[in-house]
Amino acid sequence: MATAAEAAAMRQAITLAARALGATSPNPVVGCVVLDATGTVVGEGYHQRAGGPHAEVHALRAAGERARGGTAVVTLEPCNHTGRTGPCAQALVDAGIARVVYAVPDPTATATGGAHRLRSAGVEVEQGLLEGEARAGNIAWLTAVKSGRPYVTWKYAATLDGRIAAADRSSRWITSPESRADVHRLRAEADAVVVGSGTMRADDPHLAVRGIEGATQPLRVVVDTEGTAVKPGARILDDAAPTLVAVARDAATELPATELPDAVRLPRATGGGRGLDIPALLDTLHERGVRSVLLEGGPTLAGAFVAAGAVDRVVGYLAPVLLGAGPTALADAGIGTIADALRLDITETVRVGPDLRITAVPNSPEYKER
Amino acid sequence: MATAAEAAAMRQAITLAARALGATSPNPVVGCVVLDATGTVVGEGYHQRAGGPHAEVHALRAAGERARGGTAVVTLEPCNHTGRTGPCAQALVDAGIARVVYAVPDPTATATGGAHRLRSAGVEVEQGLLEGEARAGNIAWLTAVKSGRPYVTWKYAATLDGRIAAADRSSRWITSPESRADVHRLRAEADAVVVGSGTMRADDPHLAVRGIEGATQPLRVVVDTEGTAVKPGARILDDAAPTLVAVARDAATELPATELPDAVRLPRATGGGRGLDIPALLDTLHERGVRSVLLEGGPTLAGAFVAAGAVDRVVGYLAPVLLGAGPTALADAGIGTIADALRLDITETVRVGPDLRITAVPNSPEYKER
Ligand SMILES: NC(=O)c1ccc[n+]([C@@H]2O[C@H](COP(=O)([O-])OP(=O)(O)OC[C@H]3O[C@@H](n4cnc5c(N)ncnc54)[C@H](OP(=O)(O)O)[C@@H]3O)[C@@H](O)[C@H]2O)c1
Ligand SMILES: NC(=O)c1ccc[n+]([C@@H]2O[C@H](COP(=O)([O-])OP(=O)(O)OC[C@H]3O[C@@H](n4cnc5c(N)ncnc54)[C@H](OP(=O)(O)O)[C@@H]3O)[C@@H](O)[C@H]2O)c1
Repeated sequence: MATAAEAAAMRQAITLAARALGATSPNPVVGCVVLDATGTVVGEGYHQRAGGPHAEVHALRAAGERARGGTAVVTLEPCNHTGRTGPCAQALVDAGIARVVYAVPDPTATATGGAHRLRSAGVEVEQGLLEGEARAGNIAWLTAVKSGRPYVTWKYAATLDGRIAAADRSSRWITSPESRADVHRLRAEADAVVVGSGTMRADDPHLAVRGIEGATQPLRVVVDTEGTAVKPGARILDDAAPTLVAVARDAATELPATELPDAVRLPRATGGGRGLDIPALLDTLHERGVRSVLLEGGPTLAGAFVAAGAVDRVVGYLAPVLLGAGPTALADAGIGTIADALRLDITETVRVGPDLRITAVPNSPEYKER
Repeated sequence: MATAAEAAAMRQAITLAARALGATSPNPVVGCVVLDATGTVVGEGYHQRAGGPHAEVHALRAAGERARGGTAVVTLEPCNHTGRTGPCAQALVDAGIARVVYAVPDPTATATGGAHRLRSAGVEVEQGLLEGEARAGNIAWLTAVKSGRPYVTWKYAATLDGRIAAADRSSRWITSPESRADVHRLRAEADAVVVGSGTMRADDPHLAVRGIEGATQPLRVVVDTEGTAVKPGARILDDAAPTLVAVARDAATELPATELPDAVRLPRATGGGRGLDIPALLDTLHERGVRSVLLEGGPTLAGAFVAAGAVDRVVGYLAPVLLGAGPTALADAGIGTIADALRLDITETVRVGPDLRITAVPNSPEYKER
């Protein structure tokens, strides 16, 4: 049984881990708190970026000799893997840690076995403390490990009646400055931000994170089948963040031209659909280390993601505005009748300035299987 | 200064008043609690239905002799008007009430003056205790007094992406049983429930209150310009509640036929718009004693109400469902560009089963002037 001090430490470890969301891929976020034998916190750490020291190493360093005989509280099973850093399980043993409490088992084939190595070395090991919270904090990485593709959050901003613009396409501004700032937080937590060629043409978006100090910039991705939407001078071509343009294998365009960023050629959608194949796009991003994607639209591309069963979370910013006309937040998702609707569970609703942010996740297990 | 006992009594009076929402029009809802000289509750009452005794009379009767020297706490200024019942101000004086605490001044020309009469009779009078809450509880009636037309709540049920049905028009069920039950509460609180001919044709709705014991049934109203949508055998023709069909003055239809309910002939919309004139419709309902209207759609009629500046409150039931196609919650409201959008303030968000109920009110004072 975990102690109250260990539970408090786990809560703190989960908070620490969350600081690095968007910065650790392809690795998970991990937090670690070391308690000495009396239950006093003597070291804290979190995995700050891929290639950097693991959470346990940071925390053990902070604890120094005080770790001996103490307890390490970790959000994820300590790794048993020698990658860019040595196995954490061994580091814990070497530091004289007597007990390890971790929340979530490591599901990866290469890193797993940490608990076993610890037990073999005589360390007391307990799993499951605050597992639900720790899992939620690592949901993108955990989902990506399970599904083999990045975790996708579809974000949209709409009126109460589901419009993203008025009849004349004007849309500045439907949502509030507070909501727009909140979107930068979502971007900072994502490894890649994706938009379609329609949004590229209509808005010339920048897609980088602004206003969050120390944020890791996401990869900016434009899904531009014919390679004609990203023009020289586009705002995403600045050096605020890396940029990738996805075009069809057989697109007539010459890419990359000198002014143009990194490009990748992908197969077209199967079954006569428009645009590029969504699973192929996600595979490519996964290969590049992307574990979480923020899909920022527009409605057409979002519809294709929904149809592909590739939306893991929906974050809607609803502004208390009515329009009665204009384009809607979500376009054709291949759903023709109510029985085929994508059903979700609302997991959170929060007021953001005058707006409402609604977070929801698909509630049918089969959805993922499409 | 009101005492703590008086504040508690006012809270109770507001709660009592709310019980009669939907049953008192053209009168307001009013609650009254009588305290004896020591501050003990000795009588409670509320105005239960138009033509019945006023709240004060109920409360004084319950208090009997214990009212003498006591305090009457009332949500609305006691009336000074001899209508179907005598003036409450005089009844309070006759009962020997020494002090009256009321929340909201009576804005009507005929009933006003109650406070004055009380003071003239030597009663101590205080106004303003919990005025905001009391006002909110009587908002329909107060708004109707001010604007000379019924207070209109537009209710809709939609998906997160603003759809009221799938592409094939199937819509059973988007929202949950909990949300549908909640709509019956809204109906019970309204004096009239209004739908357009499109909803009549598509859904053959019943529109009466079910599942709420003792509820006063609203007037069921169909806005059916040509008088062709309400067919013999329609569900609204049962005797669960009264029904009114509004048709154009020059409609070719013969109304009312024996199977058909009460009908009213109204001018067509001005300015070449489709359908009937919304202000004329609201005038007619007001003349019939209706002070609060629940507009249940559909999107076309709701658009006309928004365009007419005749929506005072929006109650949206949002189901965590995505469709990506299908009719939207609100159709043409005469808004072409974002600057003309109807902007609201969210006043409440509540989870209703798996759904979210969002309540919002227009935030621009000019809206009402359209
Ligand atoms: N309020 C919001 O949250 C929000 C967010 C983003 C955008 N918007 C608005 O949305 C509007 C643009 O929306 P949109 O729907 O026209 O553009 P979009 O969804 O950004 O882009 C659609 C385009 O993406 C390309 N595409 C590539 N692969 C695709 C696939 N598998 N399925 C579908 N499309 C694919 C297609 O064009 P090609 O095949 O030619 O490449 C398609 O026309 C703009 O007005 C923008 O302001 C609003
Ligand atoms: N999810 C929800 O909350 C909800 C609620 C209600 C309905 N619905 C759905 O909505 C659909 C029907 O919607 P709808 O838009 O076709 O029908 P609607 O709004 O119920 O009715 C529209 C009709 O009302 C008549 N009308 C009379 N005066 C009008 C005026 N001033 N302005 C506009 N119209 C006026 C017009 O027909 P005439 O001139 O010929 O009379 C018009 O075509 C149905 O599928 C129903 O299931 C959904």
